[in-house]
Amino acid sequence: MDIPEDHPRYLSLMARELIAEGVEKGLVDRTGLIAHGRGEAFDYIIGEATIEQALPGIRAGAGALVTAEHPIISVNGNTAVLAGRDIAELSSAHGIPIEVNLFHRTEDRVVRLVELMRSHGAEEVLGVDPDEAIPGLSHARSLCSKEGIYSADAVLVPLEDGDRALALREMGKTVIAIDLNPLSRTAGTAVITIVDNVVRAVPAIKKEMDMMSKEDALKVLEGFDNEDSLNSIIEFMADRLRELGKTIV
Amino acid sequence: MDIPEDHPRYLSLMARELIAEGVEKGLVDRTGLIAHGRGEAFDYIIGEATIEQALPGIRAGAGALVTAEHPIISVNGNTAVLAGRDIAELSSAHGIPIEVNLFHRTEDRVVRLVELMRSHGAEEVLGVDPDEAIPGLSHARSLCSKEGIYSADAVLVPLEDGDRALALREMGKTVIAIDLNPLSRTAGTAVITIVDNVVRAVPAIKKEMDMMSKEDALKVLEGFDNEDSLNSIIEFMADRLRELGKTIV
Repeated sequence: MDIPEDHPRYLSLMARELIAEGVEKGLVDRTGLIAHGRGEAFDYIIGEATIEQALPGIRAGAGALVTAEHPIISVNGNTAVLAGRDIAELSSAHGIPIEVNLFHRTEDRVVRLVELMRSHGAEEVLGVDPDEAIPGLSHARSLCSKEGIYSADAVLVPLEDGDRALALREMGKTVIAIDLNPLSRTAGTAVITIVDNVVRAVPAIKKEMDMMSKEDALKVLEGFDNEDSLNSIIEFMADRLRELGKTIV
Repeated sequence: MDIPEDHPRYLSLMARELIAEGVEKGLVDRTGLIAHGRGEAFDYIIGEATIEQALPGIRAGAGALVTAEHPIISVNGNTAVLAGRDIAELSSAHGIPIEVNLFHRTEDRVVRLVELMRSHGAEEVLGVDPDEAIPGLSHARSLCSKEGIYSADAVLVPLEDGDRALALREMGKTVIAIDLNPLSRTAGTAVITIVDNVVRAVPAIKKEMDMMSKEDALKVLEGFDNEDSLNSIIEFMADRLRELGKTIV
């Protein structure tokens, strides 16, 4: 598909193509297309740009990763296809391992996604041969790696399912979610919710971490309130809906 | 997939399954999954129910079909899979032909969708062997039937692309769109925009038509303002976002 680079929605249309290609290549489950469409709707409402109201969440997410003893980045098909290179860069720059963790798990997809992340330069990529289970989830959805998600104290979960976000939180982990829907169960369950497109959020988190000392990180975390953050984002979306409404008719 | 019937989001989850199955069966293009996800997001915001603010659009849509000389119902893959039976019932009860018209057109999909609509009892289903073109669109997207969409004065287009909605309107047709996104180009382009899930909107339009005389229809159309209707829906969505925000945190 040819999308002209000067098309006003070029990045959005390219992302759609990447996800569709990901299904063809066995990297993304079919239902990942529906999830992507839901994200598109919320991204459209916020203006397909990182909103100011999302910055406290991005900074707090960076702070939680900086202060964690054993942080990990959980990656699924949509995330790997859309932001694989950025995730690999974040992982390498800050020594945070990656674990491929799929809602619709097949071993074939896990292997392909591990290979994709390695091709982007990621060094430590777990997920094959899981040896532990997250309590409270059905078997296929609970599988994880003992040295990865299972023992992590902070988990960055871009595009995570609500049940899994809750199960991770119940294990006492600092769940840092990236989710365009501020009303989703994942958004409401996470300790820190970053309401932004994963494509923009991952490099933004890395940039914050690059400049953040542990001391800074502790201050950022102290001043962060996830409830306030979500409320200000929802307010922004509601205002923006009204504003967009004025321009269409 | 087993979804318990008492699940609070049963209808939404079933719709998702139907669309995914539709892709397997060659009835729905892969990108129909992404479009469905976008719709899901807006349906979630309005509460997965027909909102009071959508009723004027539903009544006006019914009125436009009642008063039209040559109305037609345009059907694509998502519409046929989600609301095929309801479309067939509306078509038969009111003698309105159906035309299968696809954004990502393949002859194979047109034939399958015509068969599906016939299996639901639809009598007149056009779309195979198109013999006309909608001006202003690229070839594959312009194809239509002379006795169907081309010569129709009113076209009910559930889930239509913005460019096509505009091209139909430029032909002077009364475009009646069903679109969950009140901010979409289709929503802003249509003469009458029904902001509701196609699954709920189609039976609602039929019910209105069943009881509506031509005289009633003219009155309904006279009192309808699409801009006002869209604005009240957008206001509702903005208020509901705020309200939902209060319950999640």
